[in-house]
Amino acid sequence: MAEAIYFLGIDGGGSRCRARLESADGRLLGHGLGGPANPGYGLERAMGSIREAAGAALAEAGLAPEAMRSIHAGAGIAGLHLPRHRHAVDRAPHPFRSLAVDDDLRIACLAAHGGGDGAVIIAGTGFSALSMIGGETRNIGGYGFMLGERCSGARIGFSAVNAALLACDGLGPETLLGELLRRELGGAGMQLADALAGATADKYAALAPRVFEAAQWGDVVAGHILEECAAFIGDVAAILLKEQPPRLSLVGGIGERIVPWLAADIARQLAPPKASAEVGAIRLAREQFQSTREQQLSTGEVSL
Amino acid sequence: MAEAIYFLGIDGGGSRCRARLESADGRLLGHGLGGPANPGYGLERAMGSIREAAGAALAEAGLAPEAMRSIHAGAGIAGLHLPRHRHAVDRAPHPFRSLAVDDDLRIACLAAHGGGDGAVIIAGTGFSALSMIGGETRNIGGYGFMLGERCSGARIGFSAVNAALLACDGLGPETLLGELLRRELGGAGMQLADALAGATADKYAALAPRVFEAAQWGDVVAGHILEECAAFIGDVAAILLKEQPPRLSLVGGIGERIVPWLAADIARQLAPPKASAEVGAIRLAREQFQSTREQQLSTGEVSL
Repeated sequence: MAEAIYFLGIDGGGSRCRARLESADGRLLGHGLGGPANPGYGLERAMGSIREAAGAALAEAGLAPEAMRSIHAGAGIAGLHLPRHRHAVDRAPHPFRSLAVDDDLRIACLAAHGGGDGAVIIAGTGFSALSMIGGETRNIGGYGFMLGERCSGARIGFSAVNAALLACDGLGPETLLGELLRRELGGAGMQLADALAGATADKYAALAPRVFEAAQWGDVVAGHILEECAAFIGDVAAILLKEQPPRLSLVGGIGERIVPWLAADIARQLAPPKASAEVGAIRLAREQFQSTREQQLSTGEVSL
Repeated sequence: MAEAIYFLGIDGGGSRCRARLESADGRLLGHGLGGPANPGYGLERAMGSIREAAGAALAEAGLAPEAMRSIHAGAGIAGLHLPRHRHAVDRAPHPFRSLAVDDDLRIACLAAHGGGDGAVIIAGTGFSALSMIGGETRNIGGYGFMLGERCSGARIGFSAVNAALLACDGLGPETLLGELLRRELGGAGMQLADALAGATADKYAALAPRVFEAAQWGDVVAGHILEECAAFIGDVAAILLKEQPPRLSLVGGIGERIVPWLAADIARQLAPPKASAEVGAIRLAREQFQSTREQQLSTGEVSL
């Protein structure tokens, strides 16, 4: 009997990995979560997060850890559009039979539009956007922690901390954010700043839900942060829509929550993603498996 | 003959250290420069920068490196208001006969007002402000990289990069900053972002001069960054002036250059610092030397 093989799709974001495990014939076997996958935090941490998510998916599927070696995996990884990260990940050891990687944006775009033309805006831990139309691609953003954007989770969290500290010194308006962040991080003023010394994007992004919470309570400062974020996404959407993509999707943790803050004429033009990024990543794994298989058949390495 | 002793004052900023070496009777012997002294970048780097500046001052004075062991040093160090940095620096090995440390803000305030009451705003690599009036002190800022402020060199440099990247994606107005940063860092767009991946505050602060340059050429985006910075310093000054300090000084690399951008009613109320922070740090070294000496005399450890 031939050994069973599995396909795993990984959405490797800046705050967490989501994995989806399927059988060779496409049945869903299990899901798993892991830590951040952006190699910008260190390659070992990124690869560890991928292993963690894969292990959790195997466990949910009721498969032994050894089945890891029978997995053909595909991963869309945040930050992989940067050549040095791409190079590092391509050479990194992994526990799978095979691993195909691409940047998270391309995978999200392929998934959102079922492999067809379209554009996608990711507002998650970070921000980036891509349109793929008739073989032409256009990238926006993806510059890393708070650079060239006003709508990432990291930026929203940073703005919240900033607003709380300004209020604390009498240099900005009073805001509920001070109290919400004090509860979350155990201090205000210098203690709050100290708790965040050297914090990476995922740590700030983890604070973004407090901004949505404060805005729901009518906090003007929090509302302003979200309005700025929504206006920026509107500007990005306007640029992408000029090229008339057949579909435009907004994805990511912030993307999903910011819709009520968007201008109506932008919100109206958004199409829900056809599939999540993990599904796009599985497609990548299957394509690589297929093309390797065909190569092996043509060179006589394996027979049918 | 008694061994010669020297006094060294160190202004330990977030981008560089400045050292001033004096003889026991107060004659200036030499100056020296070193790298960043903020322990937030790592204790070894900070102590290395202090050694570097001290060594350069000894060399300028024409003294042998062995004279380092005859130095009583005082240092005002950026970030030392944070307990964990204070603790680390207090225990760090150093090459001097003695080393007295305090945070850069207190030293700058003592220097600016000749040891008397007053207030000081530091806009250098980072931002912080302090008033010392009748034994009461009030701190503003000092939270670290871009937190709770709009006027540090790091923030101005970051804003410049951000503006250049937004312009590059058609998401912000055209600006000269793109070209100036391309010349400085060798790239635009993703190359620019990549050159700054994981950059610390001093790397961004080093870009701030380009913003002043672009503003002089009439660049509207650069002008706006400096206006925001000046408005923030105005807000801080207004808070400090409410407590009616006898003197208010604005110091630091940005503080010195931003004056023409300040509102006239704020600029009018600024007093030039009576001495630079290195001179304040030497005062700290002399005070500690004196008090140790008096203790030793009272316990009979040394005789007059």
